[in-house]
Amino acid sequence: MNTTAEQMAAEPDSGGPARIAVDISGGDVPLVERMAGAFEAVEMYRDVSLLLCGPADKLSEATQTIGAETDRTRIVDCPSEIGMHESPIQALRQKPDSSIAKGVQLLAEGKADAFVSAGNTGAVAAAAILKLGRSEGVHRPGIAAPMKVIDFPVVAIDVGANVDCKPINLLQYGIMASVFAEELLNIPNPRVGLLNIGEEINKGNELSKQSFELLESSKLNFIGNVEPKVLFHHGCDVLVCDGFVGNIVLKFSESLVLRLVEWIRAGVQDRFRYKLGIGLCKSLFSHLRHCADFTEYGGAPLLGVNGVVIITHGATDAYGIRNAVREARSFVQNHVGEHIAKAIRDDAYARSAAD
Amino acid sequence: MNTTAEQMAAEPDSGGPARIAVDISGGDVPLVERMAGAFEAVEMYRDVSLLLCGPADKLSEATQTIGAETDRTRIVDCPSEIGMHESPIQALRQKPDSSIAKGVQLLAEGKADAFVSAGNTGAVAAAAILKLGRSEGVHRPGIAAPMKVIDFPVVAIDVGANVDCKPINLLQYGIMASVFAEELLNIPNPRVGLLNIGEEINKGNELSKQSFELLESSKLNFIGNVEPKVLFHHGCDVLVCDGFVGNIVLKFSESLVLRLVEWIRAGVQDRFRYKLGIGLCKSLFSHLRHCADFTEYGGAPLLGVNGVVIITHGATDAYGIRNAVREARSFVQNHVGEHIAKAIRDDAYARSAAD
Repeated sequence: MNTTAEQMAAEPDSGGPARIAVDISGGDVPLVERMAGAFEAVEMYRDVSLLLCGPADKLSEATQTIGAETDRTRIVDCPSEIGMHESPIQALRQKPDSSIAKGVQLLAEGKADAFVSAGNTGAVAAAAILKLGRSEGVHRPGIAAPMKVIDFPVVAIDVGANVDCKPINLLQYGIMASVFAEELLNIPNPRVGLLNIGEEINKGNELSKQSFELLESSKLNFIGNVEPKVLFHHGCDVLVCDGFVGNIVLKFSESLVLRLVEWIRAGVQDRFRYKLGIGLCKSLFSHLRHCADFTEYGGAPLLGVNGVVIITHGATDAYGIRNAVREARSFVQNHVGEHIAKAIRDDAYARSAAD
Repeated sequence: MNTTAEQMAAEPDSGGPARIAVDISGGDVPLVERMAGAFEAVEMYRDVSLLLCGPADKLSEATQTIGAETDRTRIVDCPSEIGMHESPIQALRQKPDSSIAKGVQLLAEGKADAFVSAGNTGAVAAAAILKLGRSEGVHRPGIAAPMKVIDFPVVAIDVGANVDCKPINLLQYGIMASVFAEELLNIPNPRVGLLNIGEEINKGNELSKQSFELLESSKLNFIGNVEPKVLFHHGCDVLVCDGFVGNIVLKFSESLVLRLVEWIRAGVQDRFRYKLGIGLCKSLFSHLRHCADFTEYGGAPLLGVNGVVIITHGATDAYGIRNAVREARSFVQNHVGEHIAKAIRDDAYARSAAD
């Protein structure tokens, strides 16, 4: 159950080479750091080739700085950049030569098998839905975030693609994330929980109550409503929620952990004994930031579109890019998209329900 | 701005004696602990008298154990108890002699000025709404949780009374919690933020977008959408959200902090140097549990009902009971309920909107 990045990296290839477009621009991390991650990835995965999307001049410069040489990377010039706070639809219209627009276009044209981006989440999702289209039978694609909670993986879905969900969306999120958890995180028969304010049946808002019924009548290994504490004690593998709630919870956890780290750091300055004490625990606390970590398993795939799209955190560094490339490669080689389409087809309600 | 429990305790009486009904049964803490808190409270606040609600035999026994003697406490026999997971409406119907039903009844009959309970939140809220009724003009009462975030107070509303909110509800929550923050936490002109997944206008779900407009056109000191990180950097004083989201966020924060404390404790066992290190930082870490603390300022009042009802955490100990009594006393003596009713009357939209 305790799948680590290393275990996943060691898994045998189950398919052919994977052509992965990687968005190098955007986000909160220097471009050269992202490039370093990309080169590390091609070094580690010999069956991967990368299409590096970003401003060609800067990418060439970074290549020289790093001193990397490989015939499995190619630069795709994307001179303009979509900012993190730009309105997605408008930005995509105004910047067809941005890394997000061109990266997704490469997928749409069959020139790449997957796209990885740490850029504006809304823009990536919008471009994917518009250019690739939804998978057959899927009402609303959802973003699945594989989080490392303390020591184990939990896949939260949706974390921001769809902020006004209907019950059918939550059912399909459960189905899609279960396939993802099983295929990519090696979790057999994943336990699916519905994030709620209480564990009893009939708890929660209208969406919860109706979604509960749908999930219960599905073929999923549905364990019922789960309160947040369940998550921290490894009580479920897939956590289904509305995209508004999922996004808030994700940001809340991240902010709380960051603030605690800041707070400990500041407190340490107050007294010498604190400094000494924290020094002794350094290796213990280096894990603290990873208690709710979103880079260990790569990035968050947008499930339910016709193509492999992985969205990573804006602060994704070289390690994160490497893991996201590994994840994209596994996604492609294990044909996860086809398994998801089959699972949607196999669930009578998920298939038939009107949007 | 940095209002502590001590400062609040020291504030001069602004009204007459306060008769406060305290629910001693229920929750996750031994009855004698709650009784000790109640006796500490009457000792500290000479203008307070308490009606202790719970099974008379056990309460008498606890009184003898503690050895307390005062003519300002009286036991109100409430032989039955509503469990934390019982269905509120059904439990209230079946157990009219429970501490929750009788405590609220004392308020309804004018025999008490306030009711404090650590019991089943849904049952307390339902009893209050049914027996006391909503304040004039209030569509849906909301639970306001005054949290200590790192070092400062933030009032989150609603944290669970109303899980399917309309925009008018969120507007009224902002108005009611602003009065509460100003009157009881001494925060002048509180900054009201709308919890959202982004700071830009037009972010979020339908509820967010419509609520934003209402809040912006109100007389509140509305600062716009706030993301979770804003909360941890003291960017707002009142955090408005839907009761479903508020409840999830509250439980998520609590679980995460508890889990981190557990995790540090377990990690410490691994190596002697960790034990030594944490030992040196003991006083620093004793604060960790209070980074998102819900007992420092007392409990969470149900705002918008005709009466003072304070709901405290199920794990409320003697210290928490004392603070909740202090809070109830201030609420009564400062006529916060009347100020809230006036604020609702003064806001044209809040008054006129149809439910």
